[in-house]
Amino acid sequence: MREARKGMLLVISGPSGAGKGTLYGKVLAADPDMTFSVSYTTRAPRPGEVDGKDYRFVSDGEFRAMLEQDGFLEHAQVHGHFYGTPRQPVLDALEAGRSVMLDIDPQGALQVMEKMPGCVSVFILPPSFTELRRRLEGRGTETREQIERRLQNARGEVALKDKYQYLVVNDDLEVAYRTLQGIVDAEKQRSCRYFPVVEE
Amino acid sequence: MREARKGMLLVISGPSGAGKGTLYGKVLAADPDMTFSVSYTTRAPRPGEVDGKDYRFVSDGEFRAMLEQDGFLEHAQVHGHFYGTPRQPVLDALEAGRSVMLDIDPQGALQVMEKMPGCVSVFILPPSFTELRRRLEGRGTETREQIERRLQNARGEVALKDKYQYLVVNDDLEVAYRTLQGIVDAEKQRSCRYFPVVEE
Repeated sequence: MREARKGMLLVISGPSGAGKGTLYGKVLAADPDMTFSVSYTTRAPRPGEVDGKDYRFVSDGEFRAMLEQDGFLEHAQVHGHFYGTPRQPVLDALEAGRSVMLDIDPQGALQVMEKMPGCVSVFILPPSFTELRRRLEGRGTETREQIERRLQNARGEVALKDKYQYLVVNDDLEVAYRTLQGIVDAEKQRSCRYFPVVEE
Repeated sequence: MREARKGMLLVISGPSGAGKGTLYGKVLAADPDMTFSVSYTTRAPRPGEVDGKDYRFVSDGEFRAMLEQDGFLEHAQVHGHFYGTPRQPVLDALEAGRSVMLDIDPQGALQVMEKMPGCVSVFILPPSFTELRRRLEGRGTETREQIERRLQNARGEVALKDKYQYLVVNDDLEVAYRTLQGIVDAEKQRSCRYFPVVEE
């Protein structure tokens, strides 16, 4: 069986605390075809976050300089900080046939969906706002005020869920992971990305 | 977790002998959400085929009468016989929230894809034309001349594979089944069919 495949651009979004990071970490660990696009941000690293792996942590000045050179596929200001997806690494990876996963906030996700209409978009939902609050509080990395702001944003973000192609509720982590991986695997079978050759 | 779902119209097609019937039989057996739309045909039953289950076997006159009443969602003439999908049962099932699977030849599939743009279309490919011949010969239900005609048609049908959303190569049956079921499961997560409610 001869076959060829093209990479996909996978956009994963959802409110803070929905569990995006844990979910896509499992996809990245299990799926050798998937690479991760490291976003730029001007926010400070959280404990344990590694520069160049979780984010590229840059100054406001560095971020603005890249913006002026049209260096971002999308960018957004969230909770007072800049976030952006560097354009060139993503285009290079897709060009080379690799799949690229973006973990971006809903503002940025909508920009990418408009600029890259062939992308696959998945929105991760929490089962309830009570559970979302519990997870944000359990994380212990935000102030009470930050948590309230994130919860308020979450309501607006959830209201826009239908802008995404796929929805996954992260209630049970294992179920949500299998659902997300199933979406990725199904999208690999799309005729726009999968080119099997029926031999003689 | 409150959620609602809408049914999907699943169009499965592929050349004779690619193994569509075996594959979708496994999906129907495993997936309680999926129902099968029984096609009308004017061809004679093959040994073991049951009227009303595999096909509704009707006369040329009966078929033409339904055609005149616009009773088909699609119809086609294949290998000298008429085949058609009755319109009303499919619309009724979708309306009631059930999913409906259609096993139709490529002529009919293209008609349904045009009339029902929200449908999910999957094309089943054989790994090779040699293997396709082997399967058709092994079935022992067609004459040598019929087999040659089916093989010739298969080449034309395979050339149109990119009209379908998804491609599945049926080389190993178990792998092909899991791939097809995975596509069905992923499509259930589409935001146009899946309506989860994030509770307070």
